[in-house]
Amino acid sequence: MNYIVKDENAIYYECGYSSDNALFLKLGSEAFFLTDSRYAIEAENLVKGATVIIERDLYAKANSIIKTSKIKKLTYDPKEWSIFHFEKITKDLKIKLQALPDLSHKKRIIKSDEELKIIKKAVKLGAKAFDRFAKDIQKNGFESSEYNLTYMAKKALSKKGEYELSFDPIVAVKGNAAKPHALPTSEKLHKKDLLLVDAGLKYKRYCSDRTRTVYAKDDFSFDTIQKFKSKKIQKAYDTVLKAHDNAIEKARSGMKAKEVDALTRKIIEKAGFGEYYVHSTGHGVGLDIHEMPYIASKSDTVIEDGMVYTIEPGIYIPNEFGIRIEDMVTMIEGRVVVL
Amino acid sequence: MNYIVKDENAIYYECGYSSDNALFLKLGSEAFFLTDSRYAIEAENLVKGATVIIERDLYAKANSIIKTSKIKKLTYDPKEWSIFHFEKITKDLKIKLQALPDLSHKKRIIKSDEELKIIKKAVKLGAKAFDRFAKDIQKNGFESSEYNLTYMAKKALSKKGEYELSFDPIVAVKGNAAKPHALPTSEKLHKKDLLLVDAGLKYKRYCSDRTRTVYAKDDFSFDTIQKFKSKKIQKAYDTVLKAHDNAIEKARSGMKAKEVDALTRKIIEKAGFGEYYVHSTGHGVGLDIHEMPYIASKSDTVIEDGMVYTIEPGIYIPNEFGIRIEDMVTMIEGRVVVL
Repeated sequence: MNYIVKDENAIYYECGYSSDNALFLKLGSEAFFLTDSRYAIEAENLVKGATVIIERDLYAKANSIIKTSKIKKLTYDPKEWSIFHFEKITKDLKIKLQALPDLSHKKRIIKSDEELKIIKKAVKLGAKAFDRFAKDIQKNGFESSEYNLTYMAKKALSKKGEYELSFDPIVAVKGNAAKPHALPTSEKLHKKDLLLVDAGLKYKRYCSDRTRTVYAKDDFSFDTIQKFKSKKIQKAYDTVLKAHDNAIEKARSGMKAKEVDALTRKIIEKAGFGEYYVHSTGHGVGLDIHEMPYIASKSDTVIEDGMVYTIEPGIYIPNEFGIRIEDMVTMIEGRVVVL
Repeated sequence: MNYIVKDENAIYYECGYSSDNALFLKLGSEAFFLTDSRYAIEAENLVKGATVIIERDLYAKANSIIKTSKIKKLTYDPKEWSIFHFEKITKDLKIKLQALPDLSHKKRIIKSDEELKIIKKAVKLGAKAFDRFAKDIQKNGFESSEYNLTYMAKKALSKKGEYELSFDPIVAVKGNAAKPHALPTSEKLHKKDLLLVDAGLKYKRYCSDRTRTVYAKDDFSFDTIQKFKSKKIQKAYDTVLKAHDNAIEKARSGMKAKEVDALTRKIIEKAGFGEYYVHSTGHGVGLDIHEMPYIASKSDTVIEDGMVYTIEPGIYIPNEFGIRIEDMVTMIEGRVVVL
């Protein structure tokens, strides 16, 4: 297959390096990595299996390389390409252009052993970071705003800059946790509040992702065993944990993603919280924080050994509280292994 | 003009709120903001001048709103839209689709007084953050790696989480500074090294951007007056500063951007460093860290009062050193005012 790739992680997957202005072309037996002069030194040191080309106008250059190559068909991901850049790179090409949505994500859906090793390490480092964050909160975090707590989370997650983050951590107190993608506010964390933390770090460019919801007493930990004073919160918490555990116990390779989604959803619906579970069960994780497979109620994707995804059911009662428990898992010999 | 907007900052500019899954439609006298249920609470509180619509499939919903509206022509930015999403939103539409590259950036090129106030404040906060960072380095930064220094820069810039960053700070020592967009390495900062820092923060979503290159002696500051031991470095530094100052002194409203670019380039070329000045003089700054006008050698954009852009000449000698001095400026009554 001849194809062109533009997304930074998709390019990294092809040749072991990327930059925020790069293109990758696979044309027959040849491969090309194009970037601009700002990245010349790193590209020449790090790109594997492709000819490095340094150019000011990557698109015009790629267009001329494709013309010279005499290929007859070129595949691209219509999600990855803006209309503008695609028109530049395909200008005056007299070949068949084949759209293939999720071209790179599809290639990446089953992780190699090497990738699994890296992802396991990322998840382990992410879990350790949650432990550091718990200690930091116990020392300095009570009476701090979500802004400051988010910064503290970044400090713990990045280990003072050693690791990049998978995404901006979500640190939400009480009612703010009811917004599944809450932005931090000036709301302060008091002792005995509900606290939701969703965060991850990158190890060798691969992401970790984890969510815990806790009762923030003096010596709390980000364990999944939590006791809340409010009966309503406790009921919702126990329901989310049960949904989470049910999917881990019962998901199998060979199931459709929507069947895995049902393993969390039916528990939450049965407990009467169905309308407050406003998102899917999970998503694949790898170089991107969101990739295939998507564990959603309408997804027919078949789950296979070697896939990596999150299980993260939640219940969100507007202005009251939000609960989510998330772990990353993979499938080995047909069953779920929590990473 | 009827138009559709997808970029997060472009949507914010239209209605005062955005999320990472949102669309904005302006159809005749009506405006619509679409997002999913994760952002419902924030959207309903913060969106101004548009009807908020909460939907799972934004694109199908937008398509049906456009069909119902009976408009005859719809404008879009081909840089903003992926082929995939554009096909979804325009499916079966029997109206004229008008491509207008940089639709939102063009609307935003002249800043309002209100925006200028916010940007001034962002730049002022950014400068203060550089001062904090200098003190932090003097206290704890020598013998630290670029990784740790980058983290320290994030701490100083974000003021422990109070502000978001405009971009990941660049903190580069000696030869690493020769890569204009250097990634951090394990290289350590020693006293008397050359240190390049390029960093900015966001205030009310507007970006600041600043670069300083310094001789990292005990009591260094991020001032533009710097004395290096190496004559070659000093000559390059003085050349970059002269180029920077020349553009600030001589740029005028009514000039083309390429004429402003020439104000830095000719000084660097004359000093014999032309081949080591591998990028443009600057770029506009606003909600995006890179927006119009681009101060480049081929740009015919006419500079006008109220534009905001960077002046950031540089000299990069591979494996030896890199120097860049960057300030944000605006044009008032025809002349440059440094922000």
